[in-house]
Amino acid sequence: MSRINYEDFIISLPDYPEPGVTFKDITPMLADSQAFSAVIDEMAEHFIGKGVTKVVGAEARGFLIGAPVAYRLGAGFVPARKPGKLPRKVMAQKYDLEYGTDEIQIHTDALSKADKVIIVDDLVATGGTAIAQAKLVEQSGATLIGFGFAMELAFLKPRSVIEKEFNQEIYSLIKVD
Amino acid sequence: MSRINYEDFIISLPDYPEPGVTFKDITPMLADSQAFSAVIDEMAEHFIGKGVTKVVGAEARGFLIGAPVAYRLGAGFVPARKPGKLPRKVMAQKYDLEYGTDEIQIHTDALSKADKVIIVDDLVATGGTAIAQAKLVEQSGATLIGFGFAMELAFLKPRSVIEKEFNQEIYSLIKVD
Repeated sequence: MSRINYEDFIISLPDYPEPGVTFKDITPMLADSQAFSAVIDEMAEHFIGKGVTKVVGAEARGFLIGAPVAYRLGAGFVPARKPGKLPRKVMAQKYDLEYGTDEIQIHTDALSKADKVIIVDDLVATGGTAIAQAKLVEQSGATLIGFGFAMELAFLKPRSVIEKEFNQEIYSLIKVD
Repeated sequence: MSRINYEDFIISLPDYPEPGVTFKDITPMLADSQAFSAVIDEMAEHFIGKGVTKVVGAEARGFLIGAPVAYRLGAGFVPARKPGKLPRKVMAQKYDLEYGTDEIQIHTDALSKADKVIIVDDLVATGGTAIAQAKLVEQSGATLIGFGFAMELAFLKPRSVIEKEFNQEIYSLIKVD
């Protein structure tokens, strides 16, 4: 199999959603069956053999990569959601946005001490959502194995921000400098 | 492999989110690796051999089943999203809610005339979201192959509602009477 160049399936949109920001649209990479398979396989194969029992992914785009990676690993999937979306008792973590804060939640019974967890998202930008999810994993008593991102906006330095709080591995398929 | 009883992994929450409504929480079914694998395998295996090239799934819970089913089928995944979420040119369909309407969108270039599409969701209740997605598939010129739902709230009669507008197959793993 020839190596897929993921960048060919990502559309850069300058000045979206606001001037000076370039949005990276990964929907063509999801829609292309070969690129989508390759992303999921590459992410999952990286973590195979590490005993992962659960993948945590954040609403909504984190589900797009995290759920298939969980399936491929033979792990369960735990959705991290915005307030008001999960119907039972939750644990919550706030994180900073450019203006104000947001919050992400998981069910209190979603993870147990026996679980080995990776956090998977389509994109890591500032690292805020990833760190909030990692704190929820720690709060649950489960073991955090690492982070997997389809795309890392390296120019925003999320890696150094995450590494200040967690020393687990950070794996990303596509780095944008 | 012994047959998994999916109902064992679904929690019924009476009077949630409002009196008289019973919420079906499928998150334990996603979190259990065996149940999650079985749901994705059973859904995908049903549609194998039908030439499916794309799976369409609606934000956010439709991504949880639709994306892994697409991966398992070797198909691409097309997210159907709420207004304001997709960054490029979209096609839109409105659908009725109990009070008012909502709208769902896909990128105009997400599907082509050559595509064979299934619509996958975690749950079908009134059928509104499924019909809106099916109209988007038709509008794109692609061929609609069928609908796959992890759970069908059969007492709300979504099947007969969908069948009034579409004669494609409706497949569901769990029926709630």
